Amino acid sequence: MGQSRPADQAGLRRGNLALLVRTLREHGALSRAQLAVRSGLSKATVSSLVTDLEARGLVHDAGVSAGGQGRPGQLVDLRPDSVCGVGLDVHVGHVGALVTDLSGEVLVHRKVVVDVPGIGPERALDQLALVANEAMAGLKNAIGVTVSVPGLVDTNAGTVPFSPRLRWRDVAVADGLAARTDLPLDQIVVENDANLGAMAELSTMDVSDLVYLTGDFGIGGGVVAGGRLVRGVGGFAGEIGHMAIDPLGPYCSCGRRGCWETQVGLGALLHACADPDDPIRDPALDLDQRMRMIRARAGAQDRRTLDALHQIGVALGLGVSYLVNLLNPSVVVLGGYFAALPEWLVEPIRNQVVAHVLAPGAGGAKVVGSRLGFTAATTGGALASLRRVLEDPTVVPVVQATEEEAPA
Amino acid sequence: MGQSRPADQAGLRRGNLALLVRTLREHGALSRAQLAVRSGLSKATVSSLVTDLEARGLVHDAGVSAGGQGRPGQLVDLRPDSVCGVGLDVHVGHVGALVTDLSGEVLVHRKVVVDVPGIGPERALDQLALVANEAMAGLKNAIGVTVSVPGLVDTNAGTVPFSPRLRWRDVAVADGLAARTDLPLDQIVVENDANLGAMAELSTMDVSDLVYLTGDFGIGGGVVAGGRLVRGVGGFAGEIGHMAIDPLGPYCSCGRRGCWETQVGLGALLHACADPDDPIRDPALDLDQRMRMIRARAGAQDRRTLDALHQIGVALGLGVSYLVNLLNPSVVVLGGYFAALPEWLVEPIRNQVVAHVLAPGAGGAKVVGSRLGFTAATTGGALASLRRVLEDPTVVPVVQATEEEAPA
Repeated sequence: MGQSRPADQAGLRRGNLALLVRTLREHGALSRAQLAVRSGLSKATVSSLVTDLEARGLVHDAGVSAGGQGRPGQLVDLRPDSVCGVGLDVHVGHVGALVTDLSGEVLVHRKVVVDVPGIGPERALDQLALVANEAMAGLKNAIGVTVSVPGLVDTNAGTVPFSPRLRWRDVAVADGLAARTDLPLDQIVVENDANLGAMAELSTMDVSDLVYLTGDFGIGGGVVAGGRLVRGVGGFAGEIGHMAIDPLGPYCSCGRRGCWETQVGLGALLHACADPDDPIRDPALDLDQRMRMIRARAGAQDRRTLDALHQIGVALGLGVSYLVNLLNPSVVVLGGYFAALPEWLVEPIRNQVVAHVLAPGAGGAKVVGSRLGFTAATTGGALASLRRVLEDPTVVPVVQATEEEAPA
Repeated sequence: MGQSRPADQAGLRRGNLALLVRTLREHGALSRAQLAVRSGLSKATVSSLVTDLEARGLVHDAGVSAGGQGRPGQLVDLRPDSVCGVGLDVHVGHVGALVTDLSGEVLVHRKVVVDVPGIGPERALDQLALVANEAMAGLKNAIGVTVSVPGLVDTNAGTVPFSPRLRWRDVAVADGLAARTDLPLDQIVVENDANLGAMAELSTMDVSDLVYLTGDFGIGGGVVAGGRLVRGVGGFAGEIGHMAIDPLGPYCSCGRRGCWETQVGLGALLHACADPDDPIRDPALDLDQRMRMIRARAGAQDRRTLDALHQIGVALGLGVSYLVNLLNPSVVVLGGYFAALPEWLVEPIRNQVVAHVLAPGAGGAKVVGSRLGFTAATTGGALASLRRVLEDPTVVPVVQATEEEAPA
């Protein structure tokens, strides 16, 4: 009975509301007539839809168009402050939060140094809740939060079955956060960090097929194919850091041997770059600071640093060539620490990819450093929260009458 | 102006026509009232849609329902012979054709032994056209043909940029076939063999995430994620046979070293199983016959054969573990020659996958032998041709008036 499979009128209207919101987000303020032309909808339909969006507070009048061809028209624009999205972040060395408005502008960005594997999941969730409460203080219009975690995430349950890097097993993140904050459980989504990073990168470029690599002590992957995230049946896709590239190689944090991340993770770079007493290997120092030291040495042509970067680049390139043979992406985006070192990593990666990919010229795949760097996951989290509105504006309730004050 | 992005009434109707065709294909004959219940559409809409499908010759009356609850109703069913789909196949050792009706029943299956790499692309296309013409002789209702080729396929152009196994470079398959047959160019699609195999396997099981491996002298992969084929930006996804598993290993047909297919292709199995003068390694013998000999020896506990199969299984399993870490599929389907040897290959593969995949229990991934075997690609090709109708029944023209004879 009444299954959701056939397109129905309510679904059609939701889809068209979303189309108008996306059109305004891409183009900025437009008149109803311009919206009709750009969307392919009739003027009458556009007028009705705009009235609906106004009632939800998502759009407002934005002056009169300057003219051009046709009559001047009343402009409609998104209200950027009508809703905001929140991305939270649990990582090996920190917890963080990033809040953006509907236009994507960053309103709040917080990061607190926390030894997450050291303090255990309960206290890490305490810290996460603190950061979340601080970041969201005074926000009345958050549409939801998305929590980024490195490792296996069961998105339906809001849990983390296994994260070797955090040393977490079966941690109920959504429940734990709901218990520590005023956030209702149905507005908390938990997602893998590389998946969120991939979606954040995707939003900055005009491609449909993308591979995103997180670069940290562990390595993760986010795959977008045909414009959609590849999640796998249980949501566990993208665990490329644990490809057994060298099954007799060194032990990995996951307990297995020779995983790719033992070759290309931050630990491998630091080990190759410097002796144990070198400040580059001092865990007490900030990671950004250590990256700057590596950049400075490489820039000064320090042989050991250059050799280490080349070694990492070649090992990265070999694994990336597997991904490119398998997925034929337009672009491979290097995130995390890789994004701090593109001058030295991109070329050896590209050489390996061209050498090992069957499609001529690596099937056109580009290798680029992320412009979002270490904020990709929280940016993607905020965006994922906002996407609920972009896909279905009716999740925002009708809060105001359009022609007159709402009845008390 | 009038872009196709917003859902419009004509698109809605096409989608609903397709919904009824798929419903009938799954359930068999139904009354209009039953179709309304199963599809969620109104009875009036269903009646109008059925009239349309009748006019296109896709459905017909199929007697009166036996009753049950409700009034007895006139049944509607697909006319299986209303259209048929054709899959053609160019492979290393043969060209072939398979024709199915709308219900998927096989009407014609032909295979001709041809040394495709030996005779070159022009003569191979001659042979393919001969087989196609024979298979389609007397068919008035073919909705199109899909040509399966192992290697890189540019589906938009209908060309094969590179197929190491066929020794083809830049072969215009669609043009070449159109020039040699009465087939119009717009009804010829060229597609990678593993992609077609994956779609054929997908149609036999209730999953959304699947990896299909072709097993032949070369190895290819077809990936389905979230119910959709992963094609990549240029259509070159799935070239897993050329993952450089052992970059210092033996040379591959592609000119590179240590590709996965040098470890797990049919050549590696035959080499490990037997000395050069063994009939198993005689290229003049039919492949099915050689497979039966290997099965017989393994069944008789021949140590060299068992060791060879174990070696192939372990090497297969390692590469499969990369795919499972990356894609988290429900099932990995072993096609081609692997499908002839599941008793000996599945267990070592599964052991490697469980050992090397981060998600507990390999994320639930099953490893199974294909039930379609070497016919997966042509079956998938016929299905791909039929899919045009299943997605948009209006590609079949209106050929008959429903209530009276069509005007002369």
